[in-house]
Amino acid sequence: MKIPVNMPPGVAFLNGHFTAENIITKVTNSSSLVGVFHDEASWQALPSNTVIYQVEMLSSAQGEGELFVGTTHLNPGRVGDEFYMTRGHFHQRREQGEVYFGLCGNGLLLLQNEQGEAHLEQVSPGSVHIIPGFTAHRLINTGTEILSALAVWPSVAGHDYAALEKGFAIRVVEQDGKIQAKEVQNG
Amino acid sequence: MKIPVNMPPGVAFLNGHFTAENIITKVTNSSSLVGVFHDEASWQALPSNTVIYQVEMLSSAQGEGELFVGTTHLNPGRVGDEFYMTRGHFHQRREQGEVYFGLCGNGLLLLQNEQGEAHLEQVSPGSVHIIPGFTAHRLINTGTEILSALAVWPSVAGHDYAALEKGFAIRVVEQDGKIQAKEVQNG
Repeated sequence: MKIPVNMPPGVAFLNGHFTAENIITKVTNSSSLVGVFHDEASWQALPSNTVIYQVEMLSSAQGEGELFVGTTHLNPGRVGDEFYMTRGHFHQRREQGEVYFGLCGNGLLLLQNEQGEAHLEQVSPGSVHIIPGFTAHRLINTGTEILSALAVWPSVAGHDYAALEKGFAIRVVEQDGKIQAKEVQNG
Repeated sequence: MKIPVNMPPGVAFLNGHFTAENIITKVTNSSSLVGVFHDEASWQALPSNTVIYQVEMLSSAQGEGELFVGTTHLNPGRVGDEFYMTRGHFHQRREQGEVYFGLCGNGLLLLQNEQGEAHLEQVSPGSVHIIPGFTAHRLINTGTEILSALAVWPSVAGHDYAALEKGFAIRVVEQDGKIQAKEVQNG
Protein backbone atom coordinates (compact mmCIF):
# COMPACT_ATOMS: atom_id res chain seq x y z
CA MET A 1 0.00 0.00 0.00
CA LYS A 2 1.32 3.40 -0.92
CA ILE A 3 1.22 5.82 2.01
CA PRO A 4 0.07 9.27 0.85
CA VAL A 5 2.09 12.37 1.66
CA ASN A 6 -0.05 15.41 2.46
CA MET A 7 0.84 18.83 1.13
CA PRO A 8 0.54 21.30 3.99
CA PRO A 9 -0.21 25.03 3.64
CA GLY A 10 2.65 27.27 2.57
CA VAL A 11 3.87 30.72 3.52
CA ALA A 12 6.06 33.07 1.46
CA PHE A 13 8.60 34.48 3.91
CA LEU A 14 9.12 37.47 1.61
CA ASN A 15 5.60 38.81 2.15
CA GLY A 16 3.69 36.49 4.50
CA HIS A 17 1.05 35.41 2.00
CA PHE A 18 -0.31 31.91 2.51
CA THR A 19 -1.11 29.16 0.04
CA ALA A 20 -3.87 26.99 1.47
CA GLU A 21 -7.36 25.74 0.75
CA ASN A 22 -8.84 27.82 3.53
CA ILE A 23 -7.52 31.27 4.24
CA ILE A 24 -9.47 33.50 6.61
CA THR A 25 -9.03 37.22 5.93
CA LYS A 26 -10.05 40.32 7.84
CA VAL A 27 -9.69 43.86 6.58
CA THR A 28 -9.56 46.78 9.02
CA ASN A 29 -10.60 50.15 7.60
CA SER A 30 -9.83 53.50 9.14
CA SER A 31 -13.52 53.99 10.01
CA SER A 32 -13.44 51.12 12.51
CA LEU A 33 -10.41 52.52 14.34
CA VAL A 34 -12.41 54.97 16.43
CA GLY A 35 -10.28 56.88 18.92
CA VAL A 36 -7.06 55.14 17.89
CA PHE A 37 -5.23 58.05 16.20
CA HIS A 38 -4.66 61.25 18.15
CA ASP A 39 -5.44 63.67 15.31
CA GLU A 40 -9.24 63.33 15.18
CA ALA A 41 -9.68 65.81 12.30
CA SER A 42 -7.16 64.05 10.07
CA TRP A 43 -8.78 60.71 10.88
CA GLN A 44 -12.24 62.11 10.00
CA ALA A 45 -10.85 63.42 6.71
CA LEU A 46 -9.82 59.93 5.52
CA PRO A 47 -12.19 58.14 3.14
CA SER A 48 -13.95 55.67 5.48
CA ASN A 49 -12.93 52.68 3.38
CA THR A 50 -9.21 53.46 3.68
CA VAL A 51 -7.57 50.11 4.41
CA ILE A 52 -5.15 50.36 7.31
CA TYR A 53 -4.33 46.67 7.70
CA GLN A 54 -5.36 43.19 6.68
CA VAL A 55 -4.90 39.91 8.50
CA GLU A 56 -4.86 36.54 6.79
CA MET A 57 -4.82 33.35 8.82
CA LEU A 58 -4.84 29.61 8.36
CA SER A 59 -7.60 27.42 9.73
CA SER A 60 -6.52 25.52 12.83
CA ALA A 61 -7.91 23.24 15.46
CA GLN A 62 -9.23 25.30 18.36
CA GLY A 63 -9.04 24.60 22.05
CA GLU A 64 -6.63 24.70 24.96
CA GLY A 65 -3.07 24.24 23.66
CA GLU A 66 -3.90 24.66 19.94
CA LEU A 67 -2.08 27.35 17.95
CA PHE A 68 -3.14 29.82 15.27
CA VAL A 69 -0.92 31.07 12.43
CA GLY A 70 -1.57 34.38 10.67
CA THR A 71 0.05 37.34 8.96
CA THR A 72 -0.70 41.02 9.56
CA HIS A 73 -0.15 43.30 6.57
CA LEU A 74 -0.01 46.90 7.78
CA ASN A 75 -0.10 49.55 5.08
CA PRO A 76 2.32 52.50 5.08
CA GLY A 77 0.81 55.89 5.73
CA ARG A 78 -0.02 58.47 8.34
CA VAL A 79 -3.09 59.96 9.97
CA GLY A 80 -1.88 63.53 10.44
CA ASP A 81 1.63 63.09 11.80
CA GLU A 82 0.97 59.62 13.25
CA PHE A 83 2.03 56.46 11.49
CA TYR A 84 -0.52 53.79 10.57
CA MET A 85 -0.80 51.18 13.27
CA THR A 86 -2.94 48.27 14.38
CA ARG A 87 -5.55 48.73 17.07
CA GLY A 88 -3.46 46.70 19.50
CA HIS A 89 -4.78 44.47 22.23
CA PHE A 90 -4.25 42.50 25.37
CA HIS A 91 -5.21 38.87 25.17
CA GLN A 92 -8.47 38.07 26.91
CA ARG A 93 -6.60 35.21 28.52
CA ARG A 94 -3.92 37.55 29.87
CA GLU A 95 -1.27 34.88 30.47
CA GLN A 96 -1.21 33.84 26.80
CA GLY A 97 1.78 35.06 24.79
CA GLU A 98 2.39 35.40 21.05
CA VAL A 99 5.32 35.28 18.64
CA TYR A 100 5.81 37.72 15.73
CA PHE A 101 8.32 37.33 12.93
CA GLY A 102 9.04 40.44 10.87
CA LEU A 103 8.90 39.52 7.16
CA CYS A 104 8.98 42.71 5.08
CA GLY A 105 8.85 46.43 5.61
CA ASN A 106 10.06 48.33 8.64
CA GLY A 107 8.31 49.40 11.77
CA LEU A 108 7.94 49.10 15.49
CA LEU A 109 6.25 46.75 17.89
CA LEU A 110 4.78 48.63 20.84
CA LEU A 111 4.50 46.52 23.96
CA GLN A 112 2.80 47.55 27.19
CA ASN A 113 2.27 45.72 30.44
CA GLU A 114 -0.72 45.94 32.76
CA GLN A 115 1.02 48.64 34.81
CA GLY A 116 1.05 50.85 31.70
CA GLU A 117 4.80 50.58 31.11
CA ALA A 118 5.53 50.61 27.38
CA HIS A 119 8.54 49.93 25.20
CA LEU A 120 9.38 49.55 21.52
CA GLU A 121 11.07 46.84 19.47
CA GLN A 122 12.41 47.27 15.93
CA VAL A 123 10.48 45.20 13.38
CA SER A 124 12.37 44.28 10.22
CA PRO A 125 12.75 41.22 8.00
CA GLY A 126 13.81 38.33 10.24
CA SER A 127 13.14 40.04 13.56
CA VAL A 128 11.72 37.71 16.23
CA HIS A 129 9.40 39.07 18.90
CA ILE A 130 8.52 36.76 21.76
CA ILE A 131 5.64 38.61 23.39
CA PRO A 132 5.15 37.35 26.93
CA GLY A 133 1.80 37.01 28.63
CA PHE A 134 0.13 40.04 30.25
CA THR A 135 1.50 42.29 27.47
CA ALA A 136 -0.53 44.37 25.03
CA HIS A 137 0.94 44.65 21.53
CA ARG A 138 0.54 46.98 18.56
CA LEU A 139 2.37 47.14 15.21
CA ILE A 140 3.35 50.54 13.79
CA ASN A 141 4.49 50.99 10.19
CA THR A 142 7.20 53.67 10.11
CA GLY A 143 8.36 52.77 6.59
CA THR A 144 7.21 53.33 3.05
CA GLU A 145 6.35 49.70 2.22
CA ILE A 146 3.75 47.30 3.61
CA LEU A 147 4.89 45.96 6.99
CA SER A 148 4.09 42.24 7.17
CA ALA A 149 4.58 40.13 10.29
CA LEU A 150 3.90 36.42 10.69
CA ALA A 151 2.35 35.50 14.03
CA VAL A 152 1.76 32.34 16.06
CA TRP A 153 -0.60 32.57 19.03
CA PRO A 154 -2.69 30.27 21.19
CA SER A 155 -6.22 29.74 19.90
CA VAL A 156 -7.63 30.36 23.38
CA ALA A 157 -5.90 33.76 23.75
CA GLY A 158 -8.77 35.92 22.54
CA HIS A 159 -8.69 39.72 22.30
CA ASP A 160 -9.46 42.32 24.92
CA TYR A 161 -9.62 45.77 23.36
CA ALA A 162 -11.57 47.38 26.19
CA ALA A 163 -8.66 47.08 28.62
CA LEU A 164 -6.78 49.57 26.44
CA GLU A 165 -9.44 52.27 26.47
CA LYS A 166 -6.89 54.79 27.71
CA GLY A 167 -4.59 53.71 24.91
CA PHE A 168 -0.89 53.05 24.88
CA ALA A 169 1.67 55.20 26.69
CA ILE A 170 3.73 55.84 23.54
CA ARG A 171 2.75 57.43 20.22
CA VAL A 172 4.98 57.34 17.13
CA VAL A 173 4.86 60.30 14.78
CA GLU A 174 6.81 61.96 12.01
CA GLN A 175 8.21 65.29 13.17
CA ASP A 176 10.74 67.41 11.28
CA GLY A 177 11.11 64.53 8.81
CA LYS A 178 12.10 62.11 11.58
CA ILE A 179 10.43 59.18 13.29
CA GLN A 180 9.73 60.28 16.85
CA ALA A 181 8.39 58.23 19.74
CA LYS A 182 6.64 60.27 22.41
CA GLU A 183 5.37 59.41 25.85
CA VAL A 184 1.77 60.45 26.32
CA GLN A 185 -0.70 60.52 29.21
CA ASN A 186 -3.72 59.14 27.46
CA GLY A 187 -2.49 57.59 24.24
CA MET B 1 13.39 62.22 26.63
CA LYS B 2 14.41 59.88 23.84
CA ILE B 3 12.58 56.57 24.00
CA PRO B 4 14.93 53.69 23.23
CA VAL B 5 14.08 51.12 20.56
CA ASN B 6 15.15 47.59 21.46
CA MET B 7 16.72 45.30 18.87
CA PRO B 8 15.02 41.92 19.15
CA PRO B 9 16.60 38.58 18.19
CA GLY B 10 16.73 37.73 14.51
CA VAL B 11 16.23 34.60 12.44
CA ALA B 12 17.54 33.89 8.93
CA PHE B 13 14.63 32.31 7.06
CA LEU B 14 17.09 30.70 4.63
CA ASN B 15 18.60 28.44 7.28
CA GLY B 16 16.92 29.05 10.64
CA HIS B 17 19.99 30.36 12.44
CA PHE B 18 19.33 32.91 15.16
CA THR B 19 21.10 36.12 16.06
CA ALA B 20 20.64 36.80 19.76
CA GLU B 21 22.57 37.33 22.96
CA ASN B 22 21.42 34.01 24.39
CA ILE B 23 21.05 31.01 22.13
CA ILE B 24 20.50 27.62 23.74
CA THR B 25 21.79 24.70 21.67
CA LYS B 26 21.42 20.96 21.99
CA VAL B 27 23.22 18.41 19.83
CA THR B 28 21.80 14.90 19.42
CA ASN B 29 24.34 12.22 18.47
CA SER B 30 23.50 8.83 17.04
CA SER B 31 24.61 7.16 20.29
CA SER B 32 21.74 8.73 22.22
CA LEU B 33 19.10 7.52 19.75
CA VAL B 34 18.87 4.02 21.21
CA GLY B 35 16.24 1.87 19.51
CA VAL B 36 15.20 4.62 17.10
CA PHE B 37 16.50 3.18 13.81
CA HIS B 38 15.38 -0.27 12.74
CA ASP B 39 18.77 -1.49 11.46
CA GLU B 40 20.55 -2.09 14.77
CA ALA B 41 23.80 -3.26 13.16
CA SER B 42 24.12 -0.18 10.94
CA TRP B 43 23.34 2.05 13.93
CA GLN B 44 26.05 0.31 16.00
CA ALA B 45 28.50 0.79 13.16
CA LEU B 46 28.18 4.60 13.23
CA PRO B 47 30.84 6.53 15.12
CA SER B 48 29.07 7.34 18.41
CA ASN B 49 29.63 11.08 17.97
CA THR B 50 27.83 11.19 14.62
CA VAL B 51 25.63 14.28 14.81
CA ILE B 52 22.08 13.49 13.67
CA TYR B 53 20.47 16.82 14.57
CA GLN B 54 20.93 20.05 16.46
CA VAL B 55 18.36 22.34 18.00
CA GLU B 56 18.94 26.02 18.70
CA MET B 57 16.42 28.04 20.62
CA LEU B 58 15.89 31.53 21.98
CA SER B 59 15.46 32.24 25.65
CA SER B 60 11.84 32.95 26.58
CA ALA B 61 9.71 33.56 29.57
CA GLN B 62 8.35 30.27 30.90
CA GLY B 63 4.96 29.48 32.31
CA GLU B 64 1.39 28.87 31.24
CA GLY B 65 0.75 30.66 27.93
CA GLU B 66 4.39 31.55 27.18
CA LEU B 67 5.90 30.42 23.87
CA PHE B 68 9.28 29.02 22.85
CA VAL B 69 10.97 29.60 19.48
CA GLY B 70 13.61 27.20 18.12
CA THR B 71 15.03 25.66 14.96
CA THR B 72 15.80 21.98 14.37
CA HIS B 73 18.64 21.29 11.94
CA LEU B 74 18.43 17.66 10.83
CA ASN B 75 21.43 16.35 8.91
CA PRO B 76 21.05 14.35 5.70
CA GLY B 77 22.05 10.71 5.85
CA ARG B 78 20.85 7.19 6.47
CA VAL B 79 21.28 4.48 9.05
CA GLY B 80 21.21 1.43 6.81
CA ASP B 81 18.31 2.15 4.45
CA GLU B 82 16.51 4.47 6.90
CA PHE B 83 16.72 8.25 6.63
CA TYR B 84 18.03 10.32 9.52
CA MET B 85 15.22 11.52 11.74
CA THR B 86 14.55 13.12 15.08
CA ARG B 87 13.58 11.00 18.06
CA GLY B 88 10.04 12.33 17.94
CA HIS B 89 7.79 12.92 20.90
CA PHE B 90 4.38 13.55 22.32
CA HIS B 91 4.10 16.59 24.50
CA GLN B 92 3.92 15.79 28.19
CA ARG B 93 0.96 18.16 28.29
CA ARG B 94 -0.84 16.23 25.57
CA GLU B 95 -3.24 19.01 24.58
CA GLN B 96 -0.42 21.40 23.65
CA GLY B 97 0.22 21.85 19.92
CA GLU B 98 3.18 23.18 17.97
CA VAL B 99 3.85 24.97 14.68
CA TYR B 100 6.70 24.08 12.29
CA PHE B 101 7.81 26.17 9.33
CA GLY B 102 10.00 24.40 6.75
CA LEU B 103 12.98 26.64 5.95
CA CYS B 104 15.52 24.66 3.90
CA GLY B 105 16.04 21.12 2.72
CA ASN B 106 13.38 18.55 2.00
CA GLY B 107 11.80 15.93 4.16
CA LEU B 108 8.74 14.65 5.90
CA LEU B 109 6.90 15.35 9.10
CA LEU B 110 5.56 12.16 10.64
CA LEU B 111 2.50 12.73 12.81
CA GLN B 112 0.82 10.13 14.98
CA ASN B 113 -2.16 10.31 17.29
CA GLU B 114 -2.68 8.46 20.55
CA GLN B 115 -4.56 5.69 18.72
CA GLY B 116 -1.37 4.98 16.74
CA GLU B 117 -2.69 6.39 13.45
CA ALA B 118 0.14 8.02 11.51
CA HIS B 119 0.43 10.23 8.46
CA LEU B 120 3.06 12.22 6.62
CA GLU B 121 3.35 15.85 5.53
CA GLN B 122 5.84 17.19 2.99
CA VAL B 123 8.38 19.57 4.55
CA SER B 124 9.96 22.09 2.19
CA PRO B 125 10.91 25.78 2.29
CA GLY B 126 7.78 27.70 3.33
CA SER B 127 5.69 24.70 4.38
CA VAL B 128 3.51 25.37 7.45
CA HIS B 129 2.66 22.53 9.81
CA ILE B 130 0.07 23.22 12.48
CA ILE B 131 0.50 20.24 14.76
CA PRO B 132 -2.60 19.83 16.90
CA GLY B 133 -2.57 18.61 20.49
CA PHE B 134 -2.43 14.88 21.26
CA THR B 135 -0.14 14.33 18.26
CA ALA B 136 3.40 12.95 18.29
CA HIS B 137 5.76 14.44 15.73
CA ARG B 138 9.07 13.47 14.10
CA LEU B 139 11.08 15.10 11.32
CA ILE B 140 12.68 12.89 8.64
CA ASN B 141 15.32 14.20 6.24
CA THR B 142 14.79 12.53 2.85
CA GLY B 143 17.00 15.01 0.98
CA THR B 144 20.70 15.63 0.50
CA GLU B 145 20.89 18.95 2.38
CA ILE B 146 20.33 19.89 6.01
CA LEU B 147 16.60 20.02 6.76
CA SER B 148 15.88 23.05 8.97
CA ALA B 149 12.49 23.80 10.48
CA LEU B 150 11.54 26.75 12.66
CA ALA B 151 9.19 25.86 15.52
CA VAL B 152 6.96 27.70 17.98
CA TRP B 153 5.59 25.74 20.93
CA PRO B 154 4.14 26.41 24.37
CA SER B 155 6.75 26.51 27.13
CA VAL B 156 4.61 24.24 29.30
CA ALA B 157 4.33 21.51 26.62
CA GLY B 158 7.25 19.36 27.77
CA HIS B 159 8.37 16.11 26.12
CA ASP B 160 7.13 12.58 26.67
CA TYR B 161 9.40 10.12 24.88
CA ALA B 162 8.31 7.09 26.91
CA ALA B 163 4.81 7.11 25.43
CA LEU B 164 6.40 6.25 22.08
CA GLU B 165 8.31 3.19 23.27
CA LYS B 166 6.70 1.09 20.53
CA GLY B 167 7.73 3.71 18.03
CA PHE B 168 5.87 5.25 15.14
CA ALA B 169 3.68 3.27 12.74
CA ILE B 170 5.56 4.46 9.64
CA ARG B 171 9.22 4.12 8.67
CA VAL B 172 10.79 5.96 5.76
CA VAL B 173 13.59 4.24 3.86
CA GLU B 174 15.44 4.36 0.58
CA GLN B 175 14.64 1.31 -1.53
CA ASP B 176 15.59 0.80 -5.16
CA GLY B 177 16.79 4.40 -5.21
CA LYS B 178 13.38 5.70 -4.13
CA ILE B 179 11.97 7.20 -0.96
CA GLN B 180 9.54 4.65 0.45
CA ALA B 181 7.20 5.00 3.42
CA LYS B 182 6.25 1.70 5.02
CA GLU B 183 3.73 0.80 7.65
CA VAL B 184 5.26 -1.19 10.48
CA GLN B 185 3.97 -3.02 13.55
CA ASN B 186 6.53 -1.86 16.06
CA GLY B 187 8.29 1.05 14.48
